[in-house]
Amino acid sequence: MCQLLGMNCNTPTDIQFSFEGFARRGGLTDEHADGWGIAFFEDSAARCFIDNTPASASPVAELIRSYPIRSKHVISHIRKATVGAVKLPNCHPFVRELWGQAWVFAHNGDLKDFQPELSGDYLPIGDTDSEHAFCLILQTLKSSFGLRRPDNRPSLQDIESVIRPLCAQIAQHGTFNMLMSNGEALFAHCSTRLEYIVRAYPFKQAHLIDCDLKVDFGQVTTPNDRVAVIATTALTDDETWTPFAPGSLLVFQDGQPVLADGTPLPNN
Amino acid sequence: MCQLLGMNCNTPTDIQFSFEGFARRGGLTDEHADGWGIAFFEDSAARCFIDNTPASASPVAELIRSYPIRSKHVISHIRKATVGAVKLPNCHPFVRELWGQAWVFAHNGDLKDFQPELSGDYLPIGDTDSEHAFCLILQTLKSSFGLRRPDNRPSLQDIESVIRPLCAQIAQHGTFNMLMSNGEALFAHCSTRLEYIVRAYPFKQAHLIDCDLKVDFGQVTTPNDRVAVIATTALTDDETWTPFAPGSLLVFQDGQPVLADGTPLPNN
Repeated sequence: MCQLLGMNCNTPTDIQFSFEGFARRGGLTDEHADGWGIAFFEDSAARCFIDNTPASASPVAELIRSYPIRSKHVISHIRKATVGAVKLPNCHPFVRELWGQAWVFAHNGDLKDFQPELSGDYLPIGDTDSEHAFCLILQTLKSSFGLRRPDNRPSLQDIESVIRPLCAQIAQHGTFNMLMSNGEALFAHCSTRLEYIVRAYPFKQAHLIDCDLKVDFGQVTTPNDRVAVIATTALTDDETWTPFAPGSLLVFQDGQPVLADGTPLPNN
Repeated sequence: MCQLLGMNCNTPTDIQFSFEGFARRGGLTDEHADGWGIAFFEDSAARCFIDNTPASASPVAELIRSYPIRSKHVISHIRKATVGAVKLPNCHPFVRELWGQAWVFAHNGDLKDFQPELSGDYLPIGDTDSEHAFCLILQTLKSSFGLRRPDNRPSLQDIESVIRPLCAQIAQHGTFNMLMSNGEALFAHCSTRLEYIVRAYPFKQAHLIDCDLKVDFGQVTTPNDRVAVIATTALTDDETWTPFAPGSLLVFQDGQPVLADGTPLPNN
């Protein structure tokens, strides 16, 4: 199994505090040492850093820890290999382009007897069940809405209405906790385990579980900032994280959930 | 304008020596300071590092200089912005998936009045002429050969026969020096300026132009190694680089050119 970390914000924010704790689970405080990756959006483009060494010891992870990259959508993954060898082509997140946007995807869980019929429009490069699921999602979006230009992309609600039943269908094959983003919204599907927290004004301090590090968010934010962090399990021990209901799909925008299983949520 | 660097080898090799000189042209010994990028293949997957700071000062470039990533196909680019703002979505190399392989592309030059008809199968994420050209190439490959599986991909010769006239057609719009790879071969099209060198046994020493650094390749290779390095202009001052003929397309495999304008070359 693997672990997921996502961040969605209303203003570009760095993920260094959360990543510091999360990366330690890649071989130090937990067993997810078979590669890792992190993707940051800037507008519709994503840059993705992956490495097939443990996140706790990777020179690329050291770069991420020391180089603050600010982004509104971040997805990270540490891998404990189950399906597919320990090699770079099997490291999450995976990235593809659809409708002139990068789409980024990472998955936690195992899918059994999962050989989706892929038309060939999107094919996996590695051999994980996860990348097969990602290709199926993009293929389904493309076949549902056709070839769209940046100025007539489907609405968020329309996209969600295709993704939600598909996630449920994929989850019939096993555990399917996943994070996905197109740089406009962050989709988070919980099959067994996923938690999130929304940090907003007035900001407090927080202390990591995986190492003795704390930050006073009041010192590094403005009153207008809002940040949602999503993780397989809580990263801090002095904040209240909200568990996802199994089977649920939340869509995050501007640092908060805006759709829960298709239902619009009130703005905070 | 920009500068290109490519490497193609018969065994996974690191590019640190060449990159050391090349990166200095990104703001130090030359003016290409508007972002940069480098992509390394592992099998059919590519990992791409991009940054919108000058290569000579970028923390990501510092990682590449200090972390030896071995690969058989590497493409790098330093940018001097002409078409498209200085931002991450406009940094080369660009990456897309076709037939279950990553394809990586970088371009040096300007294209005028170039608005190719893109069906929507591949759309640019940024707004450079270069990414438009890349999308046109992939779209043309896909429409020429259809949806292929990894076990029935077109041959190298067939792919080359589609790319070559397309490069000539794109080059009618301006300067089109480009490097592209799918992890099996490296395609290099010269419109105005591109040079290459093949290093093989017996290896000698080489000295960089852009900084006072030399390496004795005999100390870091085996007799079976062969490496081709392709660059906008020669990176060393004590080796003989071969200039491309303007309008030519060379295809490199296993560290040497194997096709020149469609004609198979004898193995060395």
